[in-house]
Amino acid sequence: MSFLLYEVFQADKMWQNLPKLAQQVDKETAQAILQECAKIAEQELDPIARQGDEIGVSYKDGVVTTAPGYKKAFQTYVDGGWTALGGDVNYGGMGMPKMLTGLHEEMLCSADISFALYPVLTAGAALSLAKHGDEALKQRYLTRMYSGEWSASMCLTEAHSGSDLGIIRTKAIPQEDGTYNVSGTKIFITGGEHDLTENIVHLVLAKLPDAPAGPRGISLFLVPKFQVNDDETLGEFNNVSCGSIEHKMGIHASATCVMNFDDSKGYLIGELNKGLACMFTMMNFERIGVGIQGLGAAVRSYQNALEYAKDRLQGRALDSKQNGVKNPSQEADSIMVHGDVRRMLLNMKALNEGSRALSSYISMQLDYATYGEGDEQVKGETLAALMTPVAKAFFTDLGFENTVAGQQVFGGHGFIREWGQEQLVRDARITQIYEGTNGIQAMDLLVRKIATSNGAMLKVFTDEVNTYINENKDNDVMAEFIAPLGDAVNDLTHLTTDLLAKSQTNINELGASANDYLHVFGYTAMAYIWARMAQVSLSKKDNNGESGDDFYQSKLHTARYFYTRILPRRLSLIASAKSGCDCLFDIDDELF
Amino acid sequence: MSFLLYEVFQADKMWQNLPKLAQQVDKETAQAILQECAKIAEQELDPIARQGDEIGVSYKDGVVTTAPGYKKAFQTYVDGGWTALGGDVNYGGMGMPKMLTGLHEEMLCSADISFALYPVLTAGAALSLAKHGDEALKQRYLTRMYSGEWSASMCLTEAHSGSDLGIIRTKAIPQEDGTYNVSGTKIFITGGEHDLTENIVHLVLAKLPDAPAGPRGISLFLVPKFQVNDDETLGEFNNVSCGSIEHKMGIHASATCVMNFDDSKGYLIGELNKGLACMFTMMNFERIGVGIQGLGAAVRSYQNALEYAKDRLQGRALDSKQNGVKNPSQEADSIMVHGDVRRMLLNMKALNEGSRALSSYISMQLDYATYGEGDEQVKGETLAALMTPVAKAFFTDLGFENTVAGQQVFGGHGFIREWGQEQLVRDARITQIYEGTNGIQAMDLLVRKIATSNGAMLKVFTDEVNTYINENKDNDVMAEFIAPLGDAVNDLTHLTTDLLAKSQTNINELGASANDYLHVFGYTAMAYIWARMAQVSLSKKDNNGESGDDFYQSKLHTARYFYTRILPRRLSLIASAKSGCDCLFDIDDELF
Repeated sequence: MSFLLYEVFQADKMWQNLPKLAQQVDKETAQAILQECAKIAEQELDPIARQGDEIGVSYKDGVVTTAPGYKKAFQTYVDGGWTALGGDVNYGGMGMPKMLTGLHEEMLCSADISFALYPVLTAGAALSLAKHGDEALKQRYLTRMYSGEWSASMCLTEAHSGSDLGIIRTKAIPQEDGTYNVSGTKIFITGGEHDLTENIVHLVLAKLPDAPAGPRGISLFLVPKFQVNDDETLGEFNNVSCGSIEHKMGIHASATCVMNFDDSKGYLIGELNKGLACMFTMMNFERIGVGIQGLGAAVRSYQNALEYAKDRLQGRALDSKQNGVKNPSQEADSIMVHGDVRRMLLNMKALNEGSRALSSYISMQLDYATYGEGDEQVKGETLAALMTPVAKAFFTDLGFENTVAGQQVFGGHGFIREWGQEQLVRDARITQIYEGTNGIQAMDLLVRKIATSNGAMLKVFTDEVNTYINENKDNDVMAEFIAPLGDAVNDLTHLTTDLLAKSQTNINELGASANDYLHVFGYTAMAYIWARMAQVSLSKKDNNGESGDDFYQSKLHTARYFYTRILPRRLSLIASAKSGCDCLFDIDDELF
Repeated sequence: MSFLLYEVFQADKMWQNLPKLAQQVDKETAQAILQECAKIAEQELDPIARQGDEIGVSYKDGVVTTAPGYKKAFQTYVDGGWTALGGDVNYGGMGMPKMLTGLHEEMLCSADISFALYPVLTAGAALSLAKHGDEALKQRYLTRMYSGEWSASMCLTEAHSGSDLGIIRTKAIPQEDGTYNVSGTKIFITGGEHDLTENIVHLVLAKLPDAPAGPRGISLFLVPKFQVNDDETLGEFNNVSCGSIEHKMGIHASATCVMNFDDSKGYLIGELNKGLACMFTMMNFERIGVGIQGLGAAVRSYQNALEYAKDRLQGRALDSKQNGVKNPSQEADSIMVHGDVRRMLLNMKALNEGSRALSSYISMQLDYATYGEGDEQVKGETLAALMTPVAKAFFTDLGFENTVAGQQVFGGHGFIREWGQEQLVRDARITQIYEGTNGIQAMDLLVRKIATSNGAMLKVFTDEVNTYINENKDNDVMAEFIAPLGDAVNDLTHLTTDLLAKSQTNINELGASANDYLHVFGYTAMAYIWARMAQVSLSKKDNNGESGDDFYQSKLHTARYFYTRILPRRLSLIASAKSGCDCLFDIDDELF
């Protein structure tokens, strides 16, 4: 993480140069935060994750009880001030940049995604409230969310309305005092009810009775579980109740609730009928957060798999006859000798480290968008918008792939619950689904971002990469990366042009190729970041001209592995994306 | 299934031409079997699968109790004579060909893999016993296994010895009466203990005290849970006890047992120190069976996903503006309109139907190996041996991919247990692991089969495909399939030559590329089978020259989808496999 922050992205210099950030953070503060966060993850969260999975959240008569250890761990997290980490400094937040809060999220998720969901949802809701809420709401609620006294949820989905928010039925009736009576049922509400905090602040999408149909008639309301008296003490129950919790494949310690609102008092956030935009402030935050969840689980799976592979003795290396037995004192070699085990581990390592680096790059863009000015800010906003769906879908697809790979390294033991590897698979699986399925992310990238801007948003990214390529085109030691990176970016540009042109006559070309496209984009962007990491590592030669210490050697080898074994994945994806949509749409529904 | 049996592979004619089979099976018998099997799967197994997952197998004081409904379902299965289906006719078996028993297994697994494991393990053990056991053992045990009175297990794995059987520690001490006293502990024993049958016949790998080290010192023993008296009644307890059961990610209704043998009386199967070969008779059967498990789960996932996609209304089609709203009477279209949903469903459809067809092709080779003569038999044996690892690893990798895709189609509901889609993912996951991990299958294919035969085994297959290509090269309507099939087979041949050549100087090239290679082989073989299915479908034009009825149109479209969108997967795999092993082995273990 330090390598990324200070050597690859030079975040410390960036922070110094952004006046709004310079007051809050410097390298020393950042290092202290990361070290303390690692302690919390290792000492408080890791020990409760397995029992959280086995025991899970329980529900009785509307009361939701978290698994043993969660209340204590949450209190420790609150006491450490972590709930304020990324918050607005005007309301008690610490104002830390996303580059730090994102790494903090990764550590939480490596330890326990279920736990992480409670504070991360609250942080996202706080972001929306800080940006769109009025002063009174912020003074009353935001301060208590940052303090960790209260948590929050996002209430979007209804039984008939998941990805299609335009058809929600939850109603908000305006009252004479300027508040709204909110009624309706929301499902799949993470942290909708639990025993970790004394109050829960729900951000609820609802429609006024006379609202326009579709997404342009949606408003956003803050609906607390308990009302708040003028003296800031908790007031009466607000008719917000949990009807049941879901029994799920994974994240068993996260309460996934059916939430009933029954003339519950709500407060408008932002403008009427513009609630979806306000909610998107939270959703975009959470989408990157979900990407980081996938990464976090995969990082943990890799750590476990590597330890297991080094310990597990099975069989002899394939080249034992040619090169001698590697571990003659034992009855078998460690499974690290087997090419296919190395393949699985290196896939995990290259994709995890690439995801963390790309995630940090996106966080950096968000920090420019929030704290930068002028062109720098606009570019940050553009790249963050472009890459949010990539972070969500690409990191979670890879996260799932890698938790599965980390399970596979364990052989039969990977299927047994007590080893913990299968929990990571089950926990990571939801990240591909919630917060907008990965198919929806792909449409967001190709249709909403790239096609709508007629490729302009993509060009902001490819210009940066092409500039980097040009700067390094005469750098011989970088040739092994720069040449294939150039091919990858060219191919991405051509694929984009091709798809946008074809979409003029048949817009279904976009939907049919969106998933392939997102992955081509992801591997290409990751190649760019791996080239930058390789470049830093290559610069670390020691006095004898040898490559640097183990850390940089490892990075360099992993970069080579990525370029050699993983980047070629784009070839198949491009071939598939270019093949057109006819084979998907020429077949009638009845013939499926 | 009928399409495959009678139109693609003309199994009925094959059965007529093989004298040993002609007495047992004809088309009428086969159809009756498949129809009755479908009934059992739908009416007896499907209803118990969800509760089997939720309640699972329980263990107390050595007693293993199956989930509610399993005893009754098993009895119905036994009463229907299904435990005898593929068995040797000389001992009460029905002698049905693998082409039928394989389809029967698929149906069981689509309904409930956990249930299927009990009879399928017994069938595999029976196969080994029938081939290698002596007459007395067969008379005593095989008859009762076919009758369904007794079941069987395969006891290979020990805690320190999973994939590396050469280092097992279970001991067999010769006794004066010709039996052996077997002692040791085996883990991960599917169906090692349960309440479905009155006796359980364990096939146990063990070593004599003076046996040679490694795999050449392994012998195979039949060890019954209860000894059998001379009058065929059950005798005394044979000190075979279950120490515990595993708590697993999936297949909760399958008992996965730690089995303790303590001077348990065992009977040698086959020759001393040649036990691994005898066990491989069972293992190869089970490997294909495990491939079919992956397929079965994926087929069920597709059926569910298709039904859900047709019912679920979310959003409007991307081309609604251009082509009008598809479902104007409702507030949203079915998600079948979305390109990415069609992609997921068509991937599942093309890969499932391709896997079933390729599986049937492999079964046909097994039937030639068992019932054929002369060159036909040798070719069947060669192709079955070549393709067994492909069936195991390729079908299970695709099966897992497809259960995940079928879960994804359900969106958030896919993650909720009550919908059943996530169970299929958890159940399918084990198929990539047990019966030899898929990494081991890949090594079996590339090292043990292809490299050891210096490519000769592969040539048997590519010769058949190239003959087919030549026969059809002037068939214009088939050009869309024959041309890319030709490319695929050529590339496979070149890749093989390349890897075998490189392995002369560095044998690690094989281990490093085995997984990619297996998948290149799989997609190429599947392309061959899809071409044959397309050809049959193209031949079914009606009197007006229009393409045939819905079934054949569906097949043809799916074949085109496979060739357009799936076959290109091989491009990335080939690029990766050809890139050499240096990037996997140049990095020291400490740098991982």
